[in-house]
Amino acid sequence: MRRQEFQIEQEEELTAFLDGMSYGFLGTSDEQGQPRVTPLNFVYTGGSFYFHGSHAGGKMEVIRRQPKVCFTVADEYALIPSYFSDPQLACPATAYFKSVTAFGKAELVEDNAEKAAVFTLFMKKLQPEGGYAPIDAADPRYRARLKGVAMVRIAPEEITAKFKFGQNLKDEERTAVIEGLSARGGGRDPETIELMKKYCPYHS
Amino acid sequence: MRRQEFQIEQEEELTAFLDGMSYGFLGTSDEQGQPRVTPLNFVYTGGSFYFHGSHAGGKMEVIRRQPKVCFTVADEYALIPSYFSDPQLACPATAYFKSVTAFGKAELVEDNAEKAAVFTLFMKKLQPEGGYAPIDAADPRYRARLKGVAMVRIAPEEITAKFKFGQNLKDEERTAVIEGLSARGGGRDPETIELMKKYCPYHS
Repeated sequence: MRRQEFQIEQEEELTAFLDGMSYGFLGTSDEQGQPRVTPLNFVYTGGSFYFHGSHAGGKMEVIRRQPKVCFTVADEYALIPSYFSDPQLACPATAYFKSVTAFGKAELVEDNAEKAAVFTLFMKKLQPEGGYAPIDAADPRYRARLKGVAMVRIAPEEITAKFKFGQNLKDEERTAVIEGLSARGGGRDPETIELMKKYCPYHS
Repeated sequence: MRRQEFQIEQEEELTAFLDGMSYGFLGTSDEQGQPRVTPLNFVYTGGSFYFHGSHAGGKMEVIRRQPKVCFTVADEYALIPSYFSDPQLACPATAYFKSVTAFGKAELVEDNAEKAAVFTLFMKKLQPEGGYAPIDAADPRYRARLKGVAMVRIAPEEITAKFKFGQNLKDEERTAVIEGLSARGGGRDPETIELMKKYCPYHS
């Protein structure tokens, strides 16, 4: 679904998912059309994705030449074995997951104050317990370091989300998968059952 | 490091890592140079990556037109808070992770027997407990379904691996991070300490 089709509730779910994920995967393409996928810690704020890296790195060079990028974040909740719904064939084996994919232009953030504000959000996300001096572009301990690191913003032109939790199952199969997950009782199986119920097309 | 530079021990580590990860991220690029990153379950066997999908899907269309792809698998072991090694500044905050990135051409697997063999490996990896009839291209219950699903092989021309576990730290910082992880004692912190010791450039 395209960004403009998200409803408020979906936007909130998307933000909650992205806030809970520490890293995502940047897709770039060089002038020869060779794609590259790079895992990166990120923050999602004000509708944009941010990540940082070295000014000198190959990633920044590729982005300068070809700023069209993709950023994908995914989390697998459960592997669903075939026998939950079919005692014979392997075909129904699958995985339930959430994924969000954004397309847009990567832009360098040049302003030191904006960098400091975004790094503050990085720290709040990844080190919420604190334990560091506030990141302030006016603080001489941070100023040069902020200049020395490259920060990139992706303002998405389009965001798609896929939350796959058995929406295509027939009633009987859904019941069988829920029973299978319930009996298995793995770490995230109870959460997966809740998400199957939440996203069930017959109950929304 | 390029594929040909891997030593046997590294090749074994790479395979062990990939065998333990259920999904990776495919990077493709369309004719306009727009990258796309798609999460996919995969198997790595005989030096190649395999994934499957719908013949009709946009992913297969893009691959047919532009077969140069990238496939990246990553796992984050620990977020390292800045205060483990610096009581004042946020700068040392980082993440320790393993990632493997492969570049190569995506090719459709057309032969039904080869598809059956690779799906068997998929099942062994993702459903090791069994519970299904052997996948055999001669079995009429599987034959049409095997034809109906698209399977893709990426035979990498280059594989790079990055296992980041504080290799760049000074001795004093390394000790501080190990002590911090040990005191925190999170789920994967003991494993992370072992990997820091294993990959420490002074002890290998």
